[in-house]
Amino acid sequence: MPLLVVGSVALDTIETPTSKRENVLGGSAVYFSYAASYFTPVRLVGVVGEDWPAEYTKLLQDRGVDTQGLQVVRGGKTFRWHGRYFADMNQRETVQVHLNVFEQFDPVLPDECRRARFVFLANGPVTIQHKVLDQCAGAELVVADTMELWINTQRRELEHLLTRIDGLVMNDSEARLLAGDENLVRAGQKIRQMGPRFVVIKKGEHGAMFFSKYETYVLPAYPTPDVVDPTGAGDSFAGGMMGYLAMRGAFDPRTLKEAMAYGILVASFTVEDFSLDRLLRIRREDLEQRMEEYKRMLSF
Amino acid sequence: MPLLVVGSVALDTIETPTSKRENVLGGSAVYFSYAASYFTPVRLVGVVGEDWPAEYTKLLQDRGVDTQGLQVVRGGKTFRWHGRYFADMNQRETVQVHLNVFEQFDPVLPDECRRARFVFLANGPVTIQHKVLDQCAGAELVVADTMELWINTQRRELEHLLTRIDGLVMNDSEARLLAGDENLVRAGQKIRQMGPRFVVIKKGEHGAMFFSKYETYVLPAYPTPDVVDPTGAGDSFAGGMMGYLAMRGAFDPRTLKEAMAYGILVASFTVEDFSLDRLLRIRREDLEQRMEEYKRMLSF
Repeated sequence: MPLLVVGSVALDTIETPTSKRENVLGGSAVYFSYAASYFTPVRLVGVVGEDWPAEYTKLLQDRGVDTQGLQVVRGGKTFRWHGRYFADMNQRETVQVHLNVFEQFDPVLPDECRRARFVFLANGPVTIQHKVLDQCAGAELVVADTMELWINTQRRELEHLLTRIDGLVMNDSEARLLAGDENLVRAGQKIRQMGPRFVVIKKGEHGAMFFSKYETYVLPAYPTPDVVDPTGAGDSFAGGMMGYLAMRGAFDPRTLKEAMAYGILVASFTVEDFSLDRLLRIRREDLEQRMEEYKRMLSF
Repeated sequence: MPLLVVGSVALDTIETPTSKRENVLGGSAVYFSYAASYFTPVRLVGVVGEDWPAEYTKLLQDRGVDTQGLQVVRGGKTFRWHGRYFADMNQRETVQVHLNVFEQFDPVLPDECRRARFVFLANGPVTIQHKVLDQCAGAELVVADTMELWINTQRRELEHLLTRIDGLVMNDSEARLLAGDENLVRAGQKIRQMGPRFVVIKKGEHGAMFFSKYETYVLPAYPTPDVVDPTGAGDSFAGGMMGYLAMRGAFDPRTLKEAMAYGILVASFTVEDFSLDRLLRIRREDLEQRMEEYKRMLSF
């Protein structure tokens, strides 16, 4: 079942304690799409400038990502982000950010996208997320991501959004901020009571937590020793999760838990190299093999 | 199979953002003993002063903890620790610490303790851990804990200890320091190569990691919303783990993983109240019930 994602498409410059890459393929919708493409066809809606390399579009298309919804703004420049990771790789600082064409992004969905039944609203202004949702009347499952900036600046719009969506995905510090509670278990439960049927809290190297009315659980991250670049791990997680749900065409509790696990595993590959480089080298079989190991790890 | 623990016995003063308790029962060997007592008889070796309340000894004895090895120093004062937790409960500061009689602690094991086949060297000076080990010729499984202070001040003694023990248990920041590696997966593998057959890294609210020559895995913490006082969680984890191993009289990979899970669950109860207060109210059945939930949480 096709999956729609609306979000940022970017050129990233990444510095880690040992290395640096400039203008590599990035952005929430890109990581999401590529991660989801292991499971299902993806329709990507986003915006880039004239500086966007055609080969990046091709790379996505080769994975079955429909890029009809990728607007190219003439004379415009693509969203650029420059980040630097600290020694422990769990913390980073933004060196520079230029929203460029993303600042005026006003997504108008192609007809095929409007008919999507599985929708992911990647991190972005909540007002834009509402606009996308207005165009997705037939969606069966809508999941959104958000971040500190929008919690602080568009809180009312976000609270409204929470009553319109099925699931919210966010990281641990964002969940603490939104819920006003330092305990992640309570924070997740509080956010769920704000509207969505389920809430997922991403904890980076510590895995992810799931909250619904009936269930609270944690799944650990896959313990990879090769963390090269954590950029895009959260979006890859969401892509793997939503891709699996769309493939199955279901979101019952059991399928959701499997989807969480696939999200965790795709993300564990993403961090093993810069940009999409590691994902470019793996196939669905590699995911399945890691899934076997992961299940073995969790059974006793 | 009886289990020996040698470590600190203390009177703690604990401040959390919402509450404070003074002179409550604490210390690594105390939390360890109580946690292990759900599974096996425990022999505790430690030292206290004349100010030690007799009812605390009785409380341990009522749980089957043999306190013959608990020395009382006349005219001495018991080890006192005063800690304060920050808002997120994952960080704390030491307000005051008075080693008192623990400073001169020179454990001489009663004969019964010398014959112990399962031994835990709780956190303390590495030189003392060696002295205990010298008295435990018949031990089949020796596991030790350590901390930053000893990694920094008794590094050589610690490296030697690692070649004499079977397992090392420590928290994440200590593992990073000892291995000189920020990645916990690599850190665990490096420490294992320093001697012990297995290494356990405790990650607090994020669970625990296990490393042997053949296996690397992570188990998440049980997601409790009621974190009242994290003091003693790590020692309770070790107590639950070692208690289960001693009860089974085995430490094959499968039993070790089950033991890790029991350790995690005992610790999840410990943090739900101050001192041993929560553990005082639970029975083995409560652990088994939480184990059922925990297993369900990890299966998909």
